This record gives sequence, C-alpha cells and structure tokens, in this order.
Amino acid sequence: MENLIRIPKPVYILSSASVVGQHEKNGPLGEYFDIVGDKDDTFGCDTWEKSESEMQRLALSRALNYACIKDTDLEAILAGDLLNQCAGSSYGLVSFETPFLGLFGACSTAAEALLLSSLLCSSHMKRCAAVSSSHNASAERQFRYPLEYGGQRAPTAQWTVTGSAAFITTSCKDDFSKTAHKVEPVPIITEALIGKSIDAGITDANNMGAAMAPAAADTLLRYFRESGLQPSDFDIIMTGDLGFEGSSILCDLTSTEGLDISAVHCDGGMIIYNRETQDKHAGGSGCGCSAVVLAAQALRGIRTGQIANMLFIGTGALMNPTAIQQGASIPGIAHLIRITADIV
Amino acid sequence: MENLIRIPKPVYILSSASVVGQHEKNGPLGEYFDIVGDKDDTFGCDTWEKSESEMQRLALSRALNYACIKDTDLEAILAGDLLNQCAGSSYGLVSFETPFLGLFGACSTAAEALLLSSLLCSSHMKRCAAVSSSHNASAERQFRYPLEYGGQRAPTAQWTVTGSAAFITTSCKDDFSKTAHKVEPVPIITEALIGKSIDAGITDANNMGAAMAPAAADTLLRYFRESGLQPSDFDIIMTGDLGFEGSSILCDLTSTEGLDISAVHCDGGMIIYNRETQDKHAGGSGCGCSAVVLAAQALRGIRTGQIANMLFIGTGALMNPTAIQQGASIPGIAHLIRITADIV
Repeated sequence: MENLIRIPKPVYILSSASVVGQHEKNGPLGEYFDIVGDKDDTFGCDTWEKSESEMQRLALSRALNYACIKDTDLEAILAGDLLNQCAGSSYGLVSFETPFLGLFGACSTAAEALLLSSLLCSSHMKRCAAVSSSHNASAERQFRYPLEYGGQRAPTAQWTVTGSAAFITTSCKDDFSKTAHKVEPVPIITEALIGKSIDAGITDANNMGAAMAPAAADTLLRYFRESGLQPSDFDIIMTGDLGFEGSSILCDLTSTEGLDISAVHCDGGMIIYNRETQDKHAGGSGCGCSAVVLAAQALRGIRTGQIANMLFIGTGALMNPTAIQQGASIPGIAHLIRITADIV
Repeated sequence: MENLIRIPKPVYILSSASVVGQHEKNGPLGEYFDIVGDKDDTFGCDTWEKSESEMQRLALSRALNYACIKDTDLEAILAGDLLNQCAGSSYGLVSFETPFLGLFGACSTAAEALLLSSLLCSSHMKRCAAVSSSHNASAERQFRYPLEYGGQRAPTAQWTVTGSAAFITTSCKDDFSKTAHKVEPVPIITEALIGKSIDAGITDANNMGAAMAPAAADTLLRYFRESGLQPSDFDIIMTGDLGFEGSSILCDLTSTEGLDISAVHCDGGMIIYNRETQDKHAGGSGCGCSAVVLAAQALRGIRTGQIANMLFIGTGALMNPTAIQQGASIPGIAHLIRITADIV
C-alpha cells in the first residue's frame, strides 16, 4: 500500500518561534533564534522540568504573537517532549485555552506534530499549533545522570539541545494579511509520509544516531520510490537529529540502495553547534533540536528565498532507560514532510 | 471558536479486540474480553514492561484477525500507554509493518487515538488502528512502588487495569464484507471533540478522579452547548476512567451548570471490577481500562443492538511523579467521540 500523502489543500506554516539556551545561542545559528534564556538556562524557574515547560509556553506565545492571532483562534495544539509522560508539554501549555493533543515521537516529535497539524488543517480544521521541546538539564538527569555527577560522554553520544519551537499551521491564506509575511515567500506543507518503527538491533544508548538512521533510510527510500522524485529535486533534505554518527550511517544506507542524498543532505544535530569549539561530540539531539533548527534555519531560508523545496525528516529513538536496562534494542522512527515556498 | 468536529464521511470501527489480566477476567465483564493472560499476568515475558508490550501486540493481532486484514492494509497505527516514553507501544508494535504515530494522553489515550484515527480515515486515509495499554505491575513500580513493597492504597486511589485494546477504523464499507458483522449493526464514529487541558489545582496523586473530572465536565459542557443535543438523546455517556470518586464529582460539576447526565452516565473504572468483592477502592484506571471496557461492553452493546447512540469520553491525568514531587498540581484532559449504530 502506498503511504505517501499528497496534501490536497494548501497548508501554510503561518509563523514559527524558537526558544533556546546559552549553548545554542553560542552556536552557528545563535543569532537566528527568537528567544534566548537567562545565563543559566533556568528561564526563571526553580526546577529544570519547569524551565522546559516555560520554554514551550514562551515558544507558543511568541508564535501566536508573530501570527497575530490568539490561542482561542487555534483548533488544536499538538505537542510532545522527552520528559516522562510528556510533562514538559502538559505543564507548559496548560494555560492556553485550546484543545490539546499530546504526542510522543521522541526526537521526531516536531515532525510528527507538523505532519498531523498539516493533515488536520487540510481537512477538519483551520489552524493548529505544533510544539516540542527538550532541555539538556532535565533530559540528562532523567535519561542518564544529574549534571552535578559529571558523567563522561561517549564519542558517539549526542548533546540534548535546550530548545523549544512552536509552529502555527493554517489553511487560511487570509491569515497572512495580518502578519509581516505579505510579500515574502511562505512555507507550505505539500506532502507527508509517516514513519515506520524500525528496530535494527542497536542496544547502545550512547549511539542514538545509529539506532535512528535505519528508520530515516526507510522513510527516505519509501518517499523517493512513491514520489518518483530525485534528491536533486530538492534544495535541502534536512534530517533531525542523527548527528554526525547517524548522518554518516544514513548516507551509507541509502547509497547502498542506490539513493545518493549526500549533495543535499544536512542534519539539525550537525549544524546547531560548532564542532571545533563546542565539544558536543556527535552533535545535537532532543525534541527541541530539529524543531529550533527548522524554525531558525530552514524556514528562514524559505522566507528569504534561499530554499524553494525541501524535505524535513524528524527522527526519534523510541526507547526508555528501563528498556535499555532490560537489554532491549532501540527502535527508531522518522516522519517526513515536504515543505515548499509559495508566494502569498 | 466552535470545536465540535462533525465527521463528514462515515468512519466505521471495523473490529476491536481486548486483552486483560486475571483481576479483569474476574470482574463483571470477564466473559466478554477476547484474550486473558496466564495466571500471573506475565503474558509469557520476563519483565512487566515486556508483558505490557506483548499485550499490545496480542490486541492488535487479534483485531486485525477479526477484521480479516493484514498490518500492511493499515495506513497508520496510533498508539500510546503510560510507561515512560510510551515504551509499551513502541516495543509492542514494532513488529507490525505499518506507519506509526505515538500519542500521549495518559488514560485518555484510547479516546485520543480513536478520535485521530476517525479524523484521518475521513480525510487522508482508509484504515487506521488505535491501540493503548496499561499493566498494573509496570505502572505500580513506575508511578508508585514495586508490588513487592506492599504499599497501602488510599480510598480515593484507583487500580491500574492490566489491559490493552486495539480498534481498527475504516472508511471502506466494503471492508465488512469479509468479516462476521454482515448483518449486525456496526459502530460508526460521527463526531469528535478534542479536550482542553484543565488544571483545577488538585495535587493529590492518589485522587486522579478529582483531577480529571473538571476536564470531563468541560468537554461535556462544550459538547452539549455546541451540538444542541441533550443527555437523553444518548443511550449511554461513558467516561473512562474517573472511577467512583471522579464520577461523582463530574455529575456534581455538570449539574451545577444545568446539565444532568446522571441517568445515562457510566464510567469504565466503575464497571470493570466488582466493588463488593474485588477491593479496588475507587475503581479501575489506566490507558487500558477505558479501552477494554469500550471494546468489551460498549461496542458489544452496539453490535447486539442494545446501544444505538453513545458518547465515549476518555479522561487522562497529564502528570508525572517528578512534577508531583515538585508540588505541581495535576492537569486533566478529556477527549470525546460520538459513536452510533449503523446497519452495513
């Protein structure tokens, strides 16, 4: 059965907003993020979990602000994060007067939320929000050790990004009339492909890139088989977040199947930090990583005319520490959306 | 903005299957569940987490079997559970060759998954599966204490159900031609209302019913305001799972607003165990509770002609133990679908 969904009715990304911490501000994309936290990444809160929730609140508030709409103008918020029971989203977004759908896609959550938002906006709804987050300090103590422990990191380990992004999707072209995007190209989601959960037998929780790359390869191979397009039809194919290790594996896996994406591939985890100066090993990861890179790098590229046609593939590792302790391997997943530039 | 979604194209529940443990088998609905585990609820696995995953695998396999279709005939599986990072679903469903969307709605997950499945089947897809689960032993040790500890339970505490259910939704009426449901009435999802996250300030993690009841009241009040219908238009209004405590609060909250649902209200958590003999305090709960009660009680009622028109409201408490330890209150959520009987 063919799984590629060609979205029949235009769904626009009306606005996006990104919130990051200090390490991300000091990376190559630093100047493009919308909100940067205080110097210790607490966002004014007394626990790291509350800091993460506050980042989601800030991201959605700013995205609504950019879109010149209120929370009650949204028909649904789709959101998720890495905290147990997705508490970052539940607590971060409870103050918004909007129907709420919780998602769990691990680091693929931004893509999953945008994918579902675009399907809902092209059918039953007008406007949705897609929100996700991760915070380095809340993730480290939940998945590994509290920061104070000073645990050693493996060379293949990725650094959980302190970041949150929110995206407003709409099927109403008129919504742009209130915003600043009157003349710029705007992003439009035209296709979607839901990922399959793929378990390639990786049991090393310090090498998530290797666990997720087979899922990304499966999604990309299905996409190009079903769409009939070529990698050269795209300005960029952005995965997020395989990091250096997983990206290298992905390009190997696809080229073995005759699909060479290397000329247009980039990965959120590879470009958010400076590899020479920031000591982040295999790159960035976390629900916030691909989300803030999409907002600050790719969508900016569409709005400034540098990108006209792209694929965004959010990758996630569907594990938890208990499963790893019990010797389970790590299933990966990768959800794809195609984003093109459109003049409103 | 009105939030009630009237589903424009018929979406049928093609099949459903329920899997439960011994306590559930010994309850009033015992004979109606499709699969009952071994005497110690391990489902042949060596950890409780693996047992829960196995229940999801069994539930979806059986539902596919009843529907006379294969996993590759589905365009998406929407699934979630209570384990950290929804690992019950990720590991339980990885063997199916189907695009996978992870959800987190706590105990509202069955309703959230059915709601989204019905929206997708009425627009971009033909067939989806909605799956959820909980296991008493994996939930107890994750949220509270390992069973071996023998912790005392508060009178307002609910008992996490060992159960999983899978539902196949379809927009293809012809799909019934292969199944046993040729002449019976079949369930059709006609309306959906996404819940808002409501924080009423409850901080007692032993009283989830009180935390979720305000969200259920909000959803029901919005539904009856927007639909123009009355509770008497329905054969049953089934919440799941508020238990005895939460159900009583719900009826109080809605009647204060002039909406008396008491004549037709029932709750999955109240009917899954025998209150006199099974010592389950405030009733059942967990992602599996409302799911297996919907499959074994309500949908059976539709197929046998006893129910023609019902509301199913899945309720969830969007918290985690860390948030409770940090003094946070517990937001609740309640997603609604309307299910009516249709002759194929």
